Amino acid sequence: MAKTMAVNAGSSSLKFQLLDMPAERVIAQGVIERIGMDDAIVTIKYGVSIASENAVDHLEDDEHITLSKDGKGKKYENVLAIKDHQQAINFMLQKLTDLGIIADFNEITGVGHRVVAGGEWFNHSVVVTDDVLTKIDRLADYAPLHNPANAMGIRAFQKLLPHALSVAVFDTSFHQTMPEENYLYSLPYEYYTRYGARKYGAHGTSHRYVSARAAQLLGKDLKDLKLITLHLGAGASITAVQGGKSIDTSMGFSPLAGLTMATRSGDVDTSLVYYIQEREGLSNEEMTNILNKKSGLLGISTISSDMRDLLDVQDTHDHAKLAVNIFVNRVVKYVGQYVAEMGGVDAIVFTAGIGENSIPVRKMIVDKLGYFGITLDEEANNVRGDEVEISTKDSRVKALLIPTNEELMIARDVEALK
Amino acid sequence: MAKTMAVNAGSSSLKFQLLDMPAERVIAQGVIERIGMDDAIVTIKYGVSIASENAVDHLEDDEHITLSKDGKGKKYENVLAIKDHQQAINFMLQKLTDLGIIADFNEITGVGHRVVAGGEWFNHSVVVTDDVLTKIDRLADYAPLHNPANAMGIRAFQKLLPHALSVAVFDTSFHQTMPEENYLYSLPYEYYTRYGARKYGAHGTSHRYVSARAAQLLGKDLKDLKLITLHLGAGASITAVQGGKSIDTSMGFSPLAGLTMATRSGDVDTSLVYYIQEREGLSNEEMTNILNKKSGLLGISTISSDMRDLLDVQDTHDHAKLAVNIFVNRVVKYVGQYVAEMGGVDAIVFTAGIGENSIPVRKMIVDKLGYFGITLDEEANNVRGDEVEISTKDSRVKALLIPTNEELMIARDVEALK
Repeated sequence: MAKTMAVNAGSSSLKFQLLDMPAERVIAQGVIERIGMDDAIVTIKYGVSIASENAVDHLEDDEHITLSKDGKGKKYENVLAIKDHQQAINFMLQKLTDLGIIADFNEITGVGHRVVAGGEWFNHSVVVTDDVLTKIDRLADYAPLHNPANAMGIRAFQKLLPHALSVAVFDTSFHQTMPEENYLYSLPYEYYTRYGARKYGAHGTSHRYVSARAAQLLGKDLKDLKLITLHLGAGASITAVQGGKSIDTSMGFSPLAGLTMATRSGDVDTSLVYYIQEREGLSNEEMTNILNKKSGLLGISTISSDMRDLLDVQDTHDHAKLAVNIFVNRVVKYVGQYVAEMGGVDAIVFTAGIGENSIPVRKMIVDKLGYFGITLDEEANNVRGDEVEISTKDSRVKALLIPTNEELMIARDVEALK
Repeated sequence: MAKTMAVNAGSSSLKFQLLDMPAERVIAQGVIERIGMDDAIVTIKYGVSIASENAVDHLEDDEHITLSKDGKGKKYENVLAIKDHQQAINFMLQKLTDLGIIADFNEITGVGHRVVAGGEWFNHSVVVTDDVLTKIDRLADYAPLHNPANAMGIRAFQKLLPHALSVAVFDTSFHQTMPEENYLYSLPYEYYTRYGARKYGAHGTSHRYVSARAAQLLGKDLKDLKLITLHLGAGASITAVQGGKSIDTSMGFSPLAGLTMATRSGDVDTSLVYYIQEREGLSNEEMTNILNKKSGLLGISTISSDMRDLLDVQDTHDHAKLAVNIFVNRVVKYVGQYVAEMGGVDAIVFTAGIGENSIPVRKMIVDKLGYFGITLDEEANNVRGDEVEISTKDSRVKALLIPTNEELMIARDVEALK
């Protein structure tokens, strides 16, 4: 069977998952953090069945392997100096070989890379060519923190695995089906022509995965469904998926827009932003940082960007409670928008960190959507991270919990392009 | 009967309406434009029954009076030098006397002034005291173009009509009932404490008037109704009115937010605004001007900010059609938000320029809201500016057309405070 790697390269980190395809079995997954530092951290988790018995022979001073609690998996950890992505990837591939996870590098026949910004050039995943790489570089304007890192990851893998198929999977491509009236802002049209000033959205791979999975779980054809997918993590977005196509999404030109997020403000009146800047003497760059890093749940609550912390103290901490309520309020309003826009909804789908794990937040949201014909099954909702229908049997509109799996979607795209 | 004047003072203009109260009969209305110029324009419309027979005697060189087409009203017009608001109001009052509309100044026993920003200090209309005037001055931060002009109008009338009751009616006060989770942005909370950074909304007097009138027309108690009021003019806003109280509205800290308007952008991703500024080399002030004056219908269509122009050419002009579609799209999405938020809706109410007069726009909006149980009565909808139910008899949710009347609402508030 072919082994496929799904890669998410950041500016100083690299996450990966190695899958047997088309069996869709995860063989190993890991992350390399603090790339460029003397104390970079490498973590690789892998299954007992795959690890060779003498894996421990290869361990050196700072390395160690621990067994997972259930005894079914192992975790390799090491701290060492790693100067760049090239070296990080080389080390990781070597370690996968040492640990007996792969026999040699060439076993990996495809690598799929998450790319944040695909602009209007990419409405689906593509095999990486020189032209594609050039375009990813040029799209850095739209994602200055991400696209250059994504491109760096692609180039490094191409050098080390020249025979593997290299595929780019864009966060934005799923949203390229949005109609003009949804993706355009009410700004002078020339800004669209000149700068591509429009809504691109994000989390596309996640929205695509859970909407397809929802159709399977509902036993319906995706083409016949009106879905609203709620990707509620530290970054959060909601998408209206009609007939399998994204027709609207809450993130905008950038990931700042839309919902209240962990530290991002979501929608805000630009006049107010200017007003605050003037009074505080803040540059646009400084204000951008505040809107992205100091706002959202953290900004309102004043204590934490983590929904779990807020839920823990909300009974005694007014600001924490307010942050939770505002988060729920914005989700409910976006759902309402998309129900209006699609003229109905068959199911709403919860995914990502908060969506998968926060029982009370799911309950608050579904309870407020009763008018649309959604009724919560409280017992079914009392789970974390499972794939489950959380609405009652007689609920006219269904609510589903579907853990997202962007890595699997990336691996599938690689397979499809082989 | 007491005569009450409703006043809307701008920086270089002054609109007024004179009403017999509590009969609520309009005696005269007019506008003085280009205040501060040598060619200021005074226009006063008044009824034949009120005008004295020898009104023409008072006319001088540049003045003239015309009869309305139906012969029921007269229009006085004059062009002359007017140096300030004080002089404008003095001239207007003198002319009302000359034309026999009032016997003398003291017949006017109350003057109600529209004030744009009331901040968190004013949740209803108030008799103007020194303290009130000071607060209106201080609130100029929130409405730098309007509040100083509103205050100037109040002071000028107080000098000329010292015995008349002076009342301030705020555009924002109706929205002061919004819950915290709706009026707060997901920004650092300290900006709310320090600068009053929150949603204030606008068009409150209009939303208040049409929601109260809707309850009368529906024969229901306002307290039992969930209404969505659509004030669609050059400036446009939508309000969720539950039990007679505004619980959410589409305008924000400023009138820039929310819907697509004649020249205002409505909601836009602030990151995109910064992106455009950087590429175009625009200051925040210049960009504010573009967002307020060059965007919206004008920006998208590239040809006009007037919905009538766009509807006229939409079959042959793609950008005009796009602008119309985006306008409708945003309205539909806000209605969806508020249906979700209130958990239902009993009626939606159209008002203001486009809402009262655009038959096709009302049709497009109502047609897209079919899922919520609203069905258009095409024949009933085929009117302009009437007070009429435009949904079918069996429509579960009603749609109403109610011409707004902010002047009447202002006059009523004056009466209530006498």
